[in-house]
Amino acid sequence: MAEFNVGSVLVTGSNRGIGLGLVKQFLELPNPPEWIFATTREPDGSQSKLALKHPNLVVLQLDVTDPNSIKAAVQRVEEHVQGHGLNLLINNAGILRVTTMENENVETMETIYLTNTVGPLLVSQEFLLLLKKAAQQSTQTGLSCSKAAIVNMSSIAGSIEVVPVWEFEQIPSYRCSKAALNMITRCQSLEYKDYGILCTSIHPGWVKTRIGTEKVEVITHLQSLG
Amino acid sequence: MAEFNVGSVLVTGSNRGIGLGLVKQFLELPNPPEWIFATTREPDGSQSKLALKHPNLVVLQLDVTDPNSIKAAVQRVEEHVQGHGLNLLINNAGILRVTTMENENVETMETIYLTNTVGPLLVSQEFLLLLKKAAQQSTQTGLSCSKAAIVNMSSIAGSIEVVPVWEFEQIPSYRCSKAALNMITRCQSLEYKDYGILCTSIHPGWVKTRIGTEKVEVITHLQSLG
Repeated sequence: MAEFNVGSVLVTGSNRGIGLGLVKQFLELPNPPEWIFATTREPDGSQSKLALKHPNLVVLQLDVTDPNSIKAAVQRVEEHVQGHGLNLLINNAGILRVTTMENENVETMETIYLTNTVGPLLVSQEFLLLLKKAAQQSTQTGLSCSKAAIVNMSSIAGSIEVVPVWEFEQIPSYRCSKAALNMITRCQSLEYKDYGILCTSIHPGWVKTRIGTEKVEVITHLQSLG
Repeated sequence: MAEFNVGSVLVTGSNRGIGLGLVKQFLELPNPPEWIFATTREPDGSQSKLALKHPNLVVLQLDVTDPNSIKAAVQRVEEHVQGHGLNLLINNAGILRVTTMENENVETMETIYLTNTVGPLLVSQEFLLLLKKAAQQSTQTGLSCSKAAIVNMSSIAGSIEVVPVWEFEQIPSYRCSKAALNMITRCQSLEYKDYGILCTSIHPGWVKTRIGTEKVEVITHLQSLG
């Protein structure tokens, strides 16, 4: 397996939760990325403070539901990497509304889908050129996060077979969005494999965030992908 | 297995394709339903002509993306069944746009999802009381189309594992909508089982319609469900 040595990484939804946890763990790696792009809908003080201490951390505004804000973020990334590509795109931004089969409606179905499913599709489309460039510039064989990869933060809640914790929360809009995100990942893997881009979904496990509760172990999944 | 003996059935998207094919096959059964509700966004002459010949066929306006039109259709159905429930709801209405990973965008992702995924959820929510009533009034044990059922017209294109005909057409928006529809079906089956309502997705096979090409064999699937 290739060494986990990521030149540049972008994490969406990185103002809190798994996204912020990932950014901190990337910063603490023995071989941290040259560039860590931490994006969020509304940058706030917490990330900027972190960026003051770490010159390789760049905080960017990016709303995954707004194509123009994605395009603007691509431009900012290009300015920083200066001719190099982007190695690792982590589509982490996601939202959840606690809904049931009874009170689920058009508005929640649509809102959750636009952020959790359509967002990762759009962000990946816009960063595709930079991911391709990273793959072309890499001397690594095979597919890996260190070369070029799209990692979509999915959930076991997207499993049609398992349908976990139904009695605890039904959240059909969230489950549908993650099932569809897994489909997007599958389509990306078929379409981008020939460019040398690894595409995968991750179930982060149960995590202590505003959405979940306990521990962050996502980075070990990424490390296992090289 | 129980006999296939459906008192009342409603088929959405029944102005052409699989929906119209199903309506015609229900009309031709040796024991046709007492009521066949054929819904479509914009009723046209072809269905009305058929209804003139068959007094058990009722053509109704219903746009699955418009909650008010669904509510109005429920009222019309109630007027006809007069205290009886609805036995079989077939969420057949669906749309497809030929898209690729490159040109897929917010508008197509959203439009296809609203019709193919959110539509069946909303229609089922609104007809739930009538389906429950049919289940309560039935003397049949177990679950069947003849008692009370929601059948969602899905597609093998919704299979994340198989991802068929990728080289032929990519259609990520359609694939996502059907994967998510399968999740809706799973949620419905968990939530409505205790009411005695069968919930299932069907892949109709390759059919000669505006979306597909050859033959209609859906009714044999339904018959196998009792």
